[in-house]
Amino acid sequence: MPPYRITLAYDGTGFLGWQIQPRGRAGRTVQGVLEAALAKLAEGRRVPVAGAGRTDAGVHALGQVASFDLARELPPPALLRALNALLPEDVRVRSAAPAAASFHARKSARSKLYRYVLDTGPLQLPTRRRQAGHVPWVLDEAAVVAAAALYPGRRDFASLASAGGAAKTTVRTVTRSEARFEDTDTGRTLVYEVEADGFLRKMVRSMVGGLIAAGRGRVTVPELGRALEARDRRAWPPPAPACGLTLVRVEYPP
Amino acid sequence: MPPYRITLAYDGTGFLGWQIQPRGRAGRTVQGVLEAALAKLAEGRRVPVAGAGRTDAGVHALGQVASFDLARELPPPALLRALNALLPEDVRVRSAAPAAASFHARKSARSKLYRYVLDTGPLQLPTRRRQAGHVPWVLDEAAVVAAAALYPGRRDFASLASAGGAAKTTVRTVTRSEARFEDTDTGRTLVYEVEADGFLRKMVRSMVGGLIAAGRGRVTVPELGRALEARDRRAWPPPAPACGLTLVRVEYPP
Repeated sequence: MPPYRITLAYDGTGFLGWQIQPRGRAGRTVQGVLEAALAKLAEGRRVPVAGAGRTDAGVHALGQVASFDLARELPPPALLRALNALLPEDVRVRSAAPAAASFHARKSARSKLYRYVLDTGPLQLPTRRRQAGHVPWVLDEAAVVAAAALYPGRRDFASLASAGGAAKTTVRTVTRSEARFEDTDTGRTLVYEVEADGFLRKMVRSMVGGLIAAGRGRVTVPELGRALEARDRRAWPPPAPACGLTLVRVEYPP
Repeated sequence: MPPYRITLAYDGTGFLGWQIQPRGRAGRTVQGVLEAALAKLAEGRRVPVAGAGRTDAGVHALGQVASFDLARELPPPALLRALNALLPEDVRVRSAAPAAASFHARKSARSKLYRYVLDTGPLQLPTRRRQAGHVPWVLDEAAVVAAAALYPGRRDFASLASAGGAAKTTVRTVTRSEARFEDTDTGRTLVYEVEADGFLRKMVRSMVGGLIAAGRGRVTVPELGRALEARDRRAWPPPAPACGLTLVRVEYPP
């Protein structure tokens, strides 16, 4: 039963998210199409897959990591080719490697890096609508950058925890939180990158919701800081839409 | 009957192209959804629309130009807002302005600029597959750049003319033809920009097909030059896929 570890990129548009839905909630998931492809390599037997990040519906990945045991030994390049031939075109395996028996894509992860892209201004280009969020306002860029500086550190992020999350604790350590703005064809675009040892459900989208609220002037940066400390999710601005979010990279101990 | 001129952006993925299909070939077109929106502003009467470029199925636009007469006078900002409220989300009006009575989006155009984006290398990111073409090879970049330098000038492009084109002459003047390569997450990406006084059907995609053939070493640059002069489309490499192509800008006399 050699264990493998693969890195995946996917377009989240056509998926209900990473995780196979509970019985009765049918729908296409990344884990589902991956397990279906692996079953074809395992004589029809189910091959349970662990994913590093349980991305939500519409969330993309450049570097999701998944681990599984396969009942046959395949050289990693052959595994990569076989999976890419079996998977639908909105999921691609970028790399495959043997893994230690103790490796688990989620439990072994040390940190994850997410990127959120948000087009701002009156109009979003139609070709960008699946890959970037959009708000029709011009944001105060200095306020957004200052708000992003509120997040780093070991903190209780209960204010940003969505209902339905299963985490035992809402304490996470954010090691990087950087907002920058770029010129695009229709205005300015926010590119926000955040890295942490783990994220609560919809946490990044809630973080971006906070940035938007500060950028619009709906809250001041000190008020947002107090809302973060309040550990009360009713005090927090609404989350940003899923389509702007990408799981960029997962780090593991060497 | 005030004439208007509007600039449009669209995601070509969900369209059979710009032009309303002949009777019997049903399908969603940009002209069709635009005329449907305009009819709602004209008490149900058809408002025929002229488009600067007849983009094919899957081809995108950042700056398509369209002209039409409307039986009522609307301030351009109100026209823009009304159309964007009526149009589907994959088409957006970027600007609206009154036009001279003699203005016709296609006949008055002086030049058009198209951009083609081509991801190269073994794997294309799934999030890029609707907005960029892809070839699984590594291209000889110097050969691609040299091949792009074959096109400028006033020439007979009969070798690049696809069947079904309705043009009276295959002579066009190319004023700009530039290939450059950029680093992307999965390798190198070709960005090709070409400007001319007009284009034959599938001409840009055929031009890119020539660049790919040169970059793969299937033809040398001098051989491609001779195939261009041969005025025989059977001698020309196949066109590149539509999804990588965008109509960027249309220029008119001042």
